[in-house]
Amino acid sequence: MDFLNNYLIYLIPVFGLVGILFMAIKSAWVVKQDAGDGDMAQLAGYIADGAMAFLRAEWKILSYFVVVAGILLAWSGTTVATSSPIIAISFVCGAFLSAFAGFLGMRIATKANVRTTQAARTSLAQALKVSFTGGTVMGLGVAGLAIIGLGSLFIVFYTMYVKNTGGSVNGEAMAKALDVLAGFSLGAESIALFARVGGGIYTKAADVGADLVGKVEAGIPEDDVRNPATIADNVGDNVGDVAGMGADLFGSYVATMLATMVLGREIVSHDAFGGIAPILLPMVIAGMGLIFSIVGAAMVRIKNETDSVQNALNIGNWASIILTAIATYFLVQWMLPNDSFHMVRDEDAAGAVKAGSLVFTKNGVFMSIVVGLVVGTLMSMITEYYTAMGKRPVLSIIRQSSTGHATNIIGGLAVGMESTVLPILVLASGIYGSYHFAGLYGVAIAAAGMMATTAMQLAIDAFGPIADNAGGIAEMSRLPEEVRHRTDNLDAVGNTTAATGKGFAIASAALTSLALFAAFVGVAGIEHIDIYKADVLAGLFVGGMIPFIFSALCISAVGRAAMAMVEEVRRQFREIPGIMEYKAKPEYEKCVAISTKASIREMVAPGLIALITPVIIGFAFGPEVLGGLLAGVTVSGVLMGIFQSNAGGAWDNAKKSFEKGCLINGEMYYKKSEPHKASVTGDTVGDPFKDTSGPSMNILIKLMSIVSLVIAPHLNNGQRLQKEQPQHSVITHVIKVDKKA
Amino acid sequence: MDFLNNYLIYLIPVFGLVGILFMAIKSAWVVKQDAGDGDMAQLAGYIADGAMAFLRAEWKILSYFVVVAGILLAWSGTTVATSSPIIAISFVCGAFLSAFAGFLGMRIATKANVRTTQAARTSLAQALKVSFTGGTVMGLGVAGLAIIGLGSLFIVFYTMYVKNTGGSVNGEAMAKALDVLAGFSLGAESIALFARVGGGIYTKAADVGADLVGKVEAGIPEDDVRNPATIADNVGDNVGDVAGMGADLFGSYVATMLATMVLGREIVSHDAFGGIAPILLPMVIAGMGLIFSIVGAAMVRIKNETDSVQNALNIGNWASIILTAIATYFLVQWMLPNDSFHMVRDEDAAGAVKAGSLVFTKNGVFMSIVVGLVVGTLMSMITEYYTAMGKRPVLSIIRQSSTGHATNIIGGLAVGMESTVLPILVLASGIYGSYHFAGLYGVAIAAAGMMATTAMQLAIDAFGPIADNAGGIAEMSRLPEEVRHRTDNLDAVGNTTAATGKGFAIASAALTSLALFAAFVGVAGIEHIDIYKADVLAGLFVGGMIPFIFSALCISAVGRAAMAMVEEVRRQFREIPGIMEYKAKPEYEKCVAISTKASIREMVAPGLIALITPVIIGFAFGPEVLGGLLAGVTVSGVLMGIFQSNAGGAWDNAKKSFEKGCLINGEMYYKKSEPHKASVTGDTVGDPFKDTSGPSMNILIKLMSIVSLVIAPHLNNGQRLQKEQPQHSVITHVIKVDKKA
Repeated sequence: MDFLNNYLIYLIPVFGLVGILFMAIKSAWVVKQDAGDGDMAQLAGYIADGAMAFLRAEWKILSYFVVVAGILLAWSGTTVATSSPIIAISFVCGAFLSAFAGFLGMRIATKANVRTTQAARTSLAQALKVSFTGGTVMGLGVAGLAIIGLGSLFIVFYTMYVKNTGGSVNGEAMAKALDVLAGFSLGAESIALFARVGGGIYTKAADVGADLVGKVEAGIPEDDVRNPATIADNVGDNVGDVAGMGADLFGSYVATMLATMVLGREIVSHDAFGGIAPILLPMVIAGMGLIFSIVGAAMVRIKNETDSVQNALNIGNWASIILTAIATYFLVQWMLPNDSFHMVRDEDAAGAVKAGSLVFTKNGVFMSIVVGLVVGTLMSMITEYYTAMGKRPVLSIIRQSSTGHATNIIGGLAVGMESTVLPILVLASGIYGSYHFAGLYGVAIAAAGMMATTAMQLAIDAFGPIADNAGGIAEMSRLPEEVRHRTDNLDAVGNTTAATGKGFAIASAALTSLALFAAFVGVAGIEHIDIYKADVLAGLFVGGMIPFIFSALCISAVGRAAMAMVEEVRRQFREIPGIMEYKAKPEYEKCVAISTKASIREMVAPGLIALITPVIIGFAFGPEVLGGLLAGVTVSGVLMGIFQSNAGGAWDNAKKSFEKGCLINGEMYYKKSEPHKASVTGDTVGDPFKDTSGPSMNILIKLMSIVSLVIAPHLNNGQRLQKEQPQHSVITHVIKVDKKA
Repeated sequence: MDFLNNYLIYLIPVFGLVGILFMAIKSAWVVKQDAGDGDMAQLAGYIADGAMAFLRAEWKILSYFVVVAGILLAWSGTTVATSSPIIAISFVCGAFLSAFAGFLGMRIATKANVRTTQAARTSLAQALKVSFTGGTVMGLGVAGLAIIGLGSLFIVFYTMYVKNTGGSVNGEAMAKALDVLAGFSLGAESIALFARVGGGIYTKAADVGADLVGKVEAGIPEDDVRNPATIADNVGDNVGDVAGMGADLFGSYVATMLATMVLGREIVSHDAFGGIAPILLPMVIAGMGLIFSIVGAAMVRIKNETDSVQNALNIGNWASIILTAIATYFLVQWMLPNDSFHMVRDEDAAGAVKAGSLVFTKNGVFMSIVVGLVVGTLMSMITEYYTAMGKRPVLSIIRQSSTGHATNIIGGLAVGMESTVLPILVLASGIYGSYHFAGLYGVAIAAAGMMATTAMQLAIDAFGPIADNAGGIAEMSRLPEEVRHRTDNLDAVGNTTAATGKGFAIASAALTSLALFAAFVGVAGIEHIDIYKADVLAGLFVGGMIPFIFSALCISAVGRAAMAMVEEVRRQFREIPGIMEYKAKPEYEKCVAISTKASIREMVAPGLIALITPVIIGFAFGPEVLGGLLAGVTVSGVLMGIFQSNAGGAWDNAKKSFEKGCLINGEMYYKKSEPHKASVTGDTVGDPFKDTSGPSMNILIKLMSIVSLVIAPHLNNGQRLQKEQPQHSVITHVIKVDKKA
């Protein structure tokens, strides 16, 4: 056990390696499945080519950004003693691994889609196995790379700044190690900005552009191979729902661990790990969660055609959550000491805990983790309620579609606004509860607990678009009815998981931002963020406004990018003879390039707002006003995110309900009826809401928080809220560990 | 001068009496104008009857509320030493005067409308004179009654609690006087809740209900006397735009004065008024503003048919603002002493000012007032830009109407979200600037300065619906082309003033809430509102969510109330034979009653949220969490108010632009074209946005703040942030004044 105590830190990346190993095995299994005949293979090839074209174009522009931002970070790292130019290396690692995880996810998704179609020719069980295994590859890749990256860099920086210098684990030395490590999270979240916002603009621009010219002008059906934009449209599904969601959760996963570690540094812990157990804990929990995600994923299977796919997913999901919760209990008991914890800042000069300070135990830490798991689960359930077919909210929109376009819109907006109530109450209770059990460390570890099974969550999320694409390929290839019936079955479940996934992503972004917010306050060396001060209150107002302008820019960008796509499709129909007669292949890659360029150009303005505002406010008005700004952004961003995502989801399912017919005031209405046309208007309005502006709120609030955390040491001349008083017991531990290691 | 110093407090209600005197003169002048021939008079009579029917129905329900709330207040007043059951009397006075001001405004508006139509038969100059004089009556009535009420009650409570007991003007005695006075503001704002929210639901329910049955089912034109709901529709314009706006500004006007007085109590001032100059100042400024509003109103006139009505209004508005600013300069120089000010809380036990405390001078106070005037003006200008025809935002919506309903909606939502940026930056700068010049007292007095010319603002606001009604009557009575040309001219200007008025109302509500927020913190006896504390942060989240559920409830309520109206109109067409042949008079009053009942029933849920949430949060979690809640409500409410009001205004004017034709991509589109139909959808979505949920954000944020202020002494066992140390100089003053008085 002593051995384990001393080497636990080196074991953390091993969890990640196990994840990557399983990913490789599962990936190889998917690739060796039958990819179908000529037609199917060709269609899938177009989509795969398009996805890679998007990644190449994105990476080209990203590389400029990473170089420029890296140089700025390296320079800024030299300006204060508490940081180092090495932060630039962390940043580049974070950016690279996030991009690499996106690449792996896109690659497997564009291989699993057609193989799922082929598998659906034999049985539903096999189709589920292929599509869900594809999703699992994505989930394990994201979680595995994140743990390997963060864990390895922590070992390096801990060795450099703490172990080799004999510095205090609660003091400046460890703070510097974590400051430099924060660059990793900044890199990951920056890539997420491009992937989520750019991807969101991309997918809706391609969708709307393809529909406007193909369906309306040229009179060819949806997903017709003659439409130059149709591949971009299918690529968009992968770009938005696979890569965008993956980058979003990669960012949240890393940021929650980092924020908990930053707060963990402030905890005085007399543990068997040299006092760094509170810092290691979030990474070890994530590692456990990864292992149990593999176990849970293995439990997702059905035998017969009539088995419930949703049940199979639920069993796997619940298994991974419950197993992780149980394992976490023993982990906390083992890693954390039996005496109580407090923060360094709550000690007086003599090392005694000041009266009125919050003191908590390891059982409190475990309870906070449970709170995080409950919050994540409830958020997903509430999101499902507000966006699911047959429930009150969607039914109310259907009813209001009978009196026209305007009432459909009013109904959807009202549903979206109303849908903020329960999630906010859950979130507020979660903050309150986790703080009650373990202070600000509790808030952060709750977020880390919630994110522990990210691999499983992402597997379920990525399964949806794979099944969706599989259905599209089946339809385009005119496969037999029973095949399409099976893919439709999977697709319907995928719609539900897409909605719950969005709820989970928002909840994780909110808790992550709060954890980062708490970490920021400590690093910035401020004691309060007092909104009774006029300048802090002004910051709160400005922060609250940013999600509104960010949403406005995203929504307008979709409109402009769609117009650019329309121009290109018109040009190809005009200039390339023979497309309509299947004699010439449209230049799919040009549409992909146009959409990619337009989306990346359009996301510059919102991106700059997210990156630069905290820097300007922080340096011009100081850390407390920046804290006010962050609080405003987080509250308003969470609200706007829930409002827009749920309104969009509800509109979407209201429209889909007309496929089987809707009963309104005793009469049945189907597709092409007037109420259906009104519901299509709502769905179109909801598209940028749910796939562009809504989900990008997640990135906005996390990125602004992580930027603030990175610049925090610079705002206050590197002073921190701590006293470097002798902490004998802790230092003894450190020295002991060093000798053995 | 000594005489004036001692008796200034008694002069304050005299300002109000002057306003009421002028109101009576102007009202008499309007009433004696020619009310036109039989048809016109009958139509106007229906509208006037309907308006009174609304008021009767409203008052009946309001009286129950006032009695119950009054009893609760009286009981709670007995529970702490710092309050008194007398607060119930203040409350009833505030409620009564607010309702009475609404009655006066509705009465004159329903008389001025038809007289404006008749005046338009002779000249534009005369029509402007009648309609604007009608608006002036409303403005003077609101401001005059507010000053009389607040000023008189302050005299009573000051005499009771301070003068007669020899209590300190900076201490408990004055605090108790102001606590009891806060009931007046609570009463006014409670009535405003019913008037603004209920009125907003009423007007849109009647509008939509009348259109759905009249135009669509029965095939009769808009504003046809055979439609039982048409009178309710016309009444609605008065209910929403006249009475709703009037009650809103009455509430803001009173609340800004009160909040400034509460903060003024905390200021140690060695002035010639016994130390209460900072408390008296906001009321005296309001009195000055009232007088100069009369002067400004007298300057609103034109001579020729081609003169600009907008210019005439602008001249009067600017004259009143500039004259008030100049007068305020001399007022501040006269009333405030030359030595510097500080807050009581910033003194140490020995009476010396603590290091780092904010200290300011009378010039700083004046500068804060200037900041308030500038903020109000800029907010109106920005609102006009975002909602005016021919400007970029509305043009962008027109362009996006060419591709259908959905893109029109997306365009309007993006415009609304974008339109939050500049107002928030102006507001944040205003908070920052006014605090810089005179601390939290500066923030409050800035609001008071901005509200000083409320009488003039309201005159301009109320002129709009009067001109609108006049145009409607002219059209229904089929008067000659030239008459309708003149009323159209006035109506067009009225549309602009409606938009700028909304900008002013939001700005005033925001600054008022902040002033109340600052006052609340002092009265609650807390030193910080630290959002770094988890429970306060949870409060911030919950607060931010409330404007979303409030808006959702308002928007849904319009839909349901419109349905109730549709049922009633159908019933009358079915059961009363001869309506369509003009042989039977429809039961207008039944529609009015249905709409009134529905609107009042529908506003119970949002109203309860506004009234009860602060009470629950305050007593369950304490004043600091309540402070977090208030900050969240205010930030989110201001954002949602601007977003919804401006989106609605922009949609409205995008639709109106099609009346003269819109050029889109080189082609002209007129009414009945496809882009026009899309713009009608946007306008219908915008209706509840701009006339129901958007403006009711004003009431929500003010009412929650005033409720918090009233319960504040109860939250902390009546302890306040002050030391009752001997303040010799001040007390000497008080005694001197007492002897003379």
